[in-house]
Amino acid sequence: MTNPKHPINDDTALLGIDLGGTNIQFGVVTGGGKVLSRAKRKTIADEGRDAVLGRIVDGIDEACAQAGVSLSQIRAVGMGAPGPVDPNSGVVLEAVNLGWLNEPIAKILSDKLGLPLYLDNDVNVAVFGEWKMGAARGATNMMGVWIGTGVGGGFILNNALFYGSFLTAGEVGHMMLSPENPPGVRSVEHNCSRTAMCSRVRQLIEAGRPSIVPELVDGKLNKIKSKVIAEAFRQGDELVTAVVRDAGERLGVVLGGIVTLLSIDKIVLGGGLTEAVGEPWVDMVSESVRRVAFPAVCKEVSVVASELEDNAGVIGAALIAAERDS
Amino acid sequence: MTNPKHPINDDTALLGIDLGGTNIQFGVVTGGGKVLSRAKRKTIADEGRDAVLGRIVDGIDEACAQAGVSLSQIRAVGMGAPGPVDPNSGVVLEAVNLGWLNEPIAKILSDKLGLPLYLDNDVNVAVFGEWKMGAARGATNMMGVWIGTGVGGGFILNNALFYGSFLTAGEVGHMMLSPENPPGVRSVEHNCSRTAMCSRVRQLIEAGRPSIVPELVDGKLNKIKSKVIAEAFRQGDELVTAVVRDAGERLGVVLGGIVTLLSIDKIVLGGGLTEAVGEPWVDMVSESVRRVAFPAVCKEVSVVASELEDNAGVIGAALIAAERDS
Repeated sequence: MTNPKHPINDDTALLGIDLGGTNIQFGVVTGGGKVLSRAKRKTIADEGRDAVLGRIVDGIDEACAQAGVSLSQIRAVGMGAPGPVDPNSGVVLEAVNLGWLNEPIAKILSDKLGLPLYLDNDVNVAVFGEWKMGAARGATNMMGVWIGTGVGGGFILNNALFYGSFLTAGEVGHMMLSPENPPGVRSVEHNCSRTAMCSRVRQLIEAGRPSIVPELVDGKLNKIKSKVIAEAFRQGDELVTAVVRDAGERLGVVLGGIVTLLSIDKIVLGGGLTEAVGEPWVDMVSESVRRVAFPAVCKEVSVVASELEDNAGVIGAALIAAERDS
Repeated sequence: MTNPKHPINDDTALLGIDLGGTNIQFGVVTGGGKVLSRAKRKTIADEGRDAVLGRIVDGIDEACAQAGVSLSQIRAVGMGAPGPVDPNSGVVLEAVNLGWLNEPIAKILSDKLGLPLYLDNDVNVAVFGEWKMGAARGATNMMGVWIGTGVGGGFILNNALFYGSFLTAGEVGHMMLSPENPPGVRSVEHNCSRTAMCSRVRQLIEAGRPSIVPELVDGKLNKIKSKVIAEAFRQGDELVTAVVRDAGERLGVVLGGIVTLLSIDKIVLGGGLTEAVGEPWVDMVSESVRRVAFPAVCKEVSVVASELEDNAGVIGAALIAAERDS
């Protein structure tokens, strides 16, 4: 790391890793953002940190082999990890679903691999990917919002990832939706996540409201997932349409407030629920954002679906490594 | 402006102007942030733009005379103006209470004075002042919130004023307080401004609720201002206490959401209502911010009262000029 380096160009080989609670995704990615290979491993966090790190090294080897490059040809590795991380020290501060607390992952893996490794939050990594290569190319100030089990977010402000003083910026899912007092107050995540929508649909069905959902899941209401919501929505199911619309409008009012607050020009929506329901979901959120954005000029904000979908993490991680290793 | 310049030091004379709808404030301020003189003029926007600009030149002359400096000894002039401005072109984009639309004020005044003049939004200017010389010294990411007739805000992010893509960042007063549907939705300003508090107090009194306020205003309920609210609050008036507390809690939930979103380490509260009610108001807002801020580390955010009060604008404007003229 002390020798002067060649500049990174479009052909430089990088490695991007997207570490999640269930799976770990790997990709050899060029400096130009092209994915040369993909690999995947189970996380199995229960087996402990070192077992997970072992599977990460395995996955890297497979991704390199598939791309036909040796580890020594990789310029740098980027990795997204769940929960708050310190991108400067490369420490995972707290990853609840991995059971990790203050783990110096970047240092351990970097030593193991003999390569520079840069760590960032998984949402930031995906946001960076969309900004560099996807739906937010050219935006100066943008927000990425991932709607799935929870609601995660990240910011590009003034053409750079924004971390904030406590390195936790982007936690839109944990904003309170309204200032009720006494606090019946609930968060964006409690109202607008896929989890919230599924549990609302289930409640309403159990309360006797008609819907095609029970048929779609063979009566197993604990099997309602994004794809079921999307299918019922596509078929015009009234109950599901109302639940999705309500969640979209609520999310849109929050995101419109963020546009008012930060004067951002682009919002990218991603995550499992967004991918499953698609454009109608993006349109509902977008309409609601524009309705409340202030002043009038802020209604020019563009709200779009992510383009990279499953590749956002590995591309973003690789390109963060490129930027930070330059 | 093409000659090389001496660096600005603590003794360099600068001029700060705070242009408001009612008054214009002037100050000769040193590069070190010391106020050497103050002057004031009425705005009287009805008389038209050129009359206002004439009074600005008069006020500058008075401020210089009082400080014992000539105009030629002033290094640069900074000015805060209400509404959205373009800080790069020096154009006031829209100042509703001045009746100005796309007025190239920086250019006109700069030519008139023979001095570089830098324009910014009035709230940004005050936020910059508090950050450089007041309650937010040393903060990396902070928000200033001014509670008066309306609710205005501005940001320092990564140690610089943050403008956003449409140059309108900070409009916290126009965020919706909750995503009700159908829209009975109302803004932060409709709930938490001095105007909102006064009109709520008036409504409740007219509905027959007991309060000492009618006595304080000789029965003239249209005379309820910040000082009346503050006096009734100080005397423990139940009605006013409840109204102020409710507004403070609502504002705190919104600001706590902003801390969650942006991971900022400092919030400075200013404006007429804050100055009048003082520490109890700041404490109420602060408590509410901490209650909702997420994750736990964000509860370390410090919520404090502005220190510069009436001087924030002229000091901030002068120091913005110093920074941009360097």
